Amino acid sequence: MASVRETLRVPKGPVDLEEIDPRGTPVGPTRKAAAADEMADLGVRLDTLQEALYAEGTGGGTRAVLLVLQGMDTSGKGGVIHHAVGLVNPQGVQIASFKRPTAEELAHDFLWRIRKQVPVPGRIGVFDRSHYEDVLVARVDSLVPEEVWQARYAQITAFEQELTGRGVTLVKCMLHISPQEQAERLLARLDDPTKRWKYNPGDLDTRAKWPAYQEAYEAALERCDADAAPWYVIPSDRKWYRNWAVAAILAETLEDMAPVFPPPDFDVEEQRALVRVSLR
Amino acid sequence: MASVRETLRVPKGPVDLEEIDPRGTPVGPTRKAAAADEMADLGVRLDTLQEALYAEGTGGGTRAVLLVLQGMDTSGKGGVIHHAVGLVNPQGVQIASFKRPTAEELAHDFLWRIRKQVPVPGRIGVFDRSHYEDVLVARVDSLVPEEVWQARYAQITAFEQELTGRGVTLVKCMLHISPQEQAERLLARLDDPTKRWKYNPGDLDTRAKWPAYQEAYEAALERCDADAAPWYVIPSDRKWYRNWAVAAILAETLEDMAPVFPPPDFDVEEQRALVRVSLR
Repeated sequence: MASVRETLRVPKGPVDLEEIDPRGTPVGPTRKAAAADEMADLGVRLDTLQEALYAEGTGGGTRAVLLVLQGMDTSGKGGVIHHAVGLVNPQGVQIASFKRPTAEELAHDFLWRIRKQVPVPGRIGVFDRSHYEDVLVARVDSLVPEEVWQARYAQITAFEQELTGRGVTLVKCMLHISPQEQAERLLARLDDPTKRWKYNPGDLDTRAKWPAYQEAYEAALERCDADAAPWYVIPSDRKWYRNWAVAAILAETLEDMAPVFPPPDFDVEEQRALVRVSLR
Repeated sequence: MASVRETLRVPKGPVDLEEIDPRGTPVGPTRKAAAADEMADLGVRLDTLQEALYAEGTGGGTRAVLLVLQGMDTSGKGGVIHHAVGLVNPQGVQIASFKRPTAEELAHDFLWRIRKQVPVPGRIGVFDRSHYEDVLVARVDSLVPEEVWQARYAQITAFEQELTGRGVTLVKCMLHISPQEQAERLLARLDDPTKRWKYNPGDLDTRAKWPAYQEAYEAALERCDADAAPWYVIPSDRKWYRNWAVAAILAETLEDMAPVFPPPDFDVEEQRALVRVSLR
């Protein structure tokens, strides 16, 4: 089987999101029940890998993972955190949600608030939205002049190179849904009183700009994809596929990193004897 | 069945930890398999409750939960976070680990670093060690003069009253293990190369002061137990019982709080119509 990463990596060259089926299952499970079985296995794999990464960090290792989640409203950024990131020990996870910037954040360069949330060694950082908002909503809504957002693609690439240079492995996932699926999810939120708090009337304004957003996503995917900081396009109209795909990409990424448990910096036999003596 | 909270609450009056069996199962499952079944149910209960608490927070609610974990080395603070806290959506959880204070932290009063980590509304905060270290290691190792640590019990009580006054429900769990069990766990860490990174030779120095630590714990349990900020003593020689007990206490606490999904601040019918129109 082709690796999940190879299959879901954004294609080289011009990106046309219309060519990628949001209901597709191009690799891995094609049914919900099969995905559930695979999630259980992924949970075991991810748990061990995360523990090794964490241990490596305590032993002086500098590596970390940064999972960047982007997608239109209802695409499932929160669902991925719940069901895919939720598979690993929460102690090893560092989640940052980027909402509309505050006045203080706007007074700094756009990467200022992002830098503060880069995961420390040994951790899996998760960005629920990210610096990409600064070339998405900022571009679509002209929050800054064009020359400003145009310059950001290169600034983002430089920033991500800096991160990978100091040991942060980036995993960037665009959760790709169709406008039909978004409408169904919005209606589902309205129907269920326990989901209404997730509904925001402002989401309809963003929805009305769907084509402009897709174009902005295409530009970000095309201009900021790099082997060291790859973009994946996750078919997300089926929640179970989306959660499986992100978990599988995380597992493959961590397996590639092959984190190692640090060797002891003490004499194991000596310590064993001391523990035994303390029992008398 | 008596509630888990009633049964595991620290007894009123003088506390004698020797009277509490670290291998006991005074309430709930008495076997590992039964505990595993109950954990699955607890996962469902906790997930719903946590989502409601989170939703309440987004709707202007001010309530939060703070789980304080204390216990001797190897008692399982990390295990509880992994297996009990790990049952809920990581997005709603805020974990803080308090290690040996830094020079900057020592330059402030002992609650300074603690205050910065109090959970925001809607979250379940978890303290892996806490302000109680300032009446545990600080007392046992005379890190500060006796009049300083003696004054801290009242300062802690006042601080916790302040927290409960602004909507933070405290759940304080002392993970109670026997010195025999600690020795076995230390040896297990030494035996397994993937566990050695958790072993710290300094733990034996702390272990050598076991009676002084038990006395310090007894004082903290006795002097800082309050109905609004209760202490629970969790029999922790059996890991499955410990994880179950903390998860069950969390669930009972959240059920008591009865968080509510906020009502919509928009017209549901109107929004439904707008979504439907956007589909044409």
